[in-house]
Amino acid sequence: METLKKISELLKDVKDKKPLVHHITNYVTANDCANMVLSIGGSPVMADEIDEVEEMVSLSSALVINMGTLNKRTIEAMLMAGKMANKLDIPVILDPVGVGATGLRTNTASKLLKEINFSVIKGNMSEIKILSGVKAIIKGVDSVESMDNAEEIAVQLAKKYNCIAAITGKKDIVTDGERLCKIDNGHKMMADITGTGCMCTSLVGTFCGVIRDYYLSTIAGILSMDLSGEKAFISLKENDGTGTFKVKLMDSIYKLSGEDIMKDGNINEKHF
Amino acid sequence: METLKKISELLKDVKDKKPLVHHITNYVTANDCANMVLSIGGSPVMADEIDEVEEMVSLSSALVINMGTLNKRTIEAMLMAGKMANKLDIPVILDPVGVGATGLRTNTASKLLKEINFSVIKGNMSEIKILSGVKAIIKGVDSVESMDNAEEIAVQLAKKYNCIAAITGKKDIVTDGERLCKIDNGHKMMADITGTGCMCTSLVGTFCGVIRDYYLSTIAGILSMDLSGEKAFISLKENDGTGTFKVKLMDSIYKLSGEDIMKDGNINEKHF
Amino acid sequence: METLKKISELLKDVKDKKPLVHHITNYVTANDCANMVLSIGGSPVMADEIDEVEEMVSLSSALVINMGTLNKRTIEAMLMAGKMANKLDIPVILDPVGVGATGLRTNTASKLLKEINFSVIKGNMSEIKILSGVKAIIKGVDSVESMDNAEEIAVQLAKKYNCIAAITGKKDIVTDGERLCKIDNGHKMMADITGTGCMCTSLVGTFCGVIRDYYLSTIAGILSMDLSGEKAFISLKENDGTGTFKVKLMDSIYKLSGEDIMKDGNINEKHF
Repeated sequence: METLKKISELLKDVKDKKPLVHHITNYVTANDCANMVLSIGGSPVMADEIDEVEEMVSLSSALVINMGTLNKRTIEAMLMAGKMANKLDIPVILDPVGVGATGLRTNTASKLLKEINFSVIKGNMSEIKILSGVKAIIKGVDSVESMDNAEEIAVQLAKKYNCIAAITGKKDIVTDGERLCKIDNGHKMMADITGTGCMCTSLVGTFCGVIRDYYLSTIAGILSMDLSGEKAFISLKENDGTGTFKVKLMDSIYKLSGEDIMKDGNINEKHF
Repeated sequence: METLKKISELLKDVKDKKPLVHHITNYVTANDCANMVLSIGGSPVMADEIDEVEEMVSLSSALVINMGTLNKRTIEAMLMAGKMANKLDIPVILDPVGVGATGLRTNTASKLLKEINFSVIKGNMSEIKILSGVKAIIKGVDSVESMDNAEEIAVQLAKKYNCIAAITGKKDIVTDGERLCKIDNGHKMMADITGTGCMCTSLVGTFCGVIRDYYLSTIAGILSMDLSGEKAFISLKENDGTGTFKVKLMDSIYKLSGEDIMKDGNINEKHF
Repeated sequence: METLKKISELLKDVKDKKPLVHHITNYVTANDCANMVLSIGGSPVMADEIDEVEEMVSLSSALVINMGTLNKRTIEAMLMAGKMANKLDIPVILDPVGVGATGLRTNTASKLLKEINFSVIKGNMSEIKILSGVKAIIKGVDSVESMDNAEEIAVQLAKKYNCIAAITGKKDIVTDGERLCKIDNGHKMMADITGTGCMCTSLVGTFCGVIRDYYLSTIAGILSMDLSGEKAFISLKENDGTGTFKVKLMDSIYKLSGEDIMKDGNINEKHF
């Protein structure tokens, strides 16, 4: 399939170009995100001090803004880095972690969306519904919403912000408002460890660092994560649990090949 | 035994209700704490910005305050979240990491204990002695005190603050001032990795999120951690060390069953 | 060989004395650094609030300053802790992570070097070149410089700041300006996970906590890290990647023996 072939070539590009991916992110999953980016072949850097983010993002191939643990200082850093990235035409990816749980998160997402042009917005069903202005409930940072009208909501968000919108969950959806791709890979055990959403966003950022077709790079990031989740689960033995699963997830990303993508990728595209 | 049976049922409750456990904690072990809560069946959220902690804790079933890496901002957030939790009758668990090592830690613990009613206070021998006003030495965040009169000190602390007091170490002690439970499980290798104390507190918080009998939920949290430590150690092979031990600890919590608790739990209760 | 024998004895000293190593470091790799220090036998403590760092460092046997994720508050804490360590004659180790990438990092390094006497400065080739005033490029926090005149640059830096200068990379160099040691151990897969540089610095800090010969303790820290990298790589199976490698790295440090150092250490010393 054409798209899978392109993605497998994109994976090679990541390994060749080693894009620098600047993160302004949370302290809970920062280590795992950095290791994910390294494992797929990119180069991560975490920096969130106001005095350096504009300079750091200028050197980078992509900027990931993850709202996992916000504070006043990092919010300002996100705004500064995002605007500079826009000026330099560097892709910016938003993971609106926990939006809707508190006013701070909802207001921060609004402000970010107002002042920064995002290339990609990626969240769980609750988060994307809330960003779309649909009434929805979120449990801390976890989605409790059904994916019933996920496609419609994603398309709407993509059109509203003129960006790629992606919803991850049981199935994943990626759309630019005109094309839509469903990804039917991954494993439910990915929800049993913290940060798989964040790590996935970091992979999306890494792929966005090597190609300007962000629809494709978003599919590439999510699909890579999903395939690694599948491989990690398959490798588990009887007494293995979340600890081993997380280790194998990292192993699988490191070992992921273009052939794996071609052979195991299960995606479904349509045009409106 | 009655208590072990209740705890095994509590474990089922955690998996059914998936309590949201709000943490204001340190950046060193936050990831492991989140993964512990998820692995036993709860839902963790870390948030420490003053502008959102009152709202976040209102949505939660328990609040864990861990003093591992304090700063002025997070101290204020702890006070705000703790008071709001008290107002809403949400249990608050204190892990006074490193109290006694510096004036900041000692003063912060004092202020927290003055302004917040804690359901549970859990620390190592040095920390609990220091909170009890007994002269004691702490080495950074590690205990160097003998557990000679641990029972007496725990009872005293429980009575003083009208809460559950728990001391973890070679043996663990949980008391509400009238009942006391000794837990004779765990493995000394748990002291060879960072954050087993923090993770244990997070498990206590998770159990506190599903039952109002905090004496029982504190025993449940500590016992679960200890049993996992034992299972993790047993699973080690010749060249395995702290890296594998940590992975297996997470695996073991994920796999922990009511039967394990009934079969392997080694607790000893008395009433005064 | 004499030096290897001394290092193997130093390892025993670490396990006997369990030196407390105060870190002011980044939130990305803090957990791994703490686990490294524990795994080799030391006692880590992370504390970065201005109100407590002077007190915390006073209790410690070494101070590690790691510039991985700077902010205004932690920069001030670094200066305060470093000056107090100097006053009390406690060794201070600098890891100038990402110096040269941004003005903030370069200026912070300058200020730290002006106001604090470091016992050891350890970085990658890009970082050490930049500190030495040699024109060099850094990619985020990763070196992209050749090690062609590494010896010369290290000697120059050691003389300039009257300290031990160490460059880690394909080969590692440690010098006090008069003696120079090349370490030919380690494995390139160490660059595929985040924080091996930070962890190595934490090991150097741990060894500095038990002996005043910082030339020797710096070699000891780097060699220990390298040998563990080798052992970790050798233990990998077909589908293992970065996840398993990181686990095995921690296992290997925990299991590292004086015999391993004597048998596998590949160092080369010269005097000028």
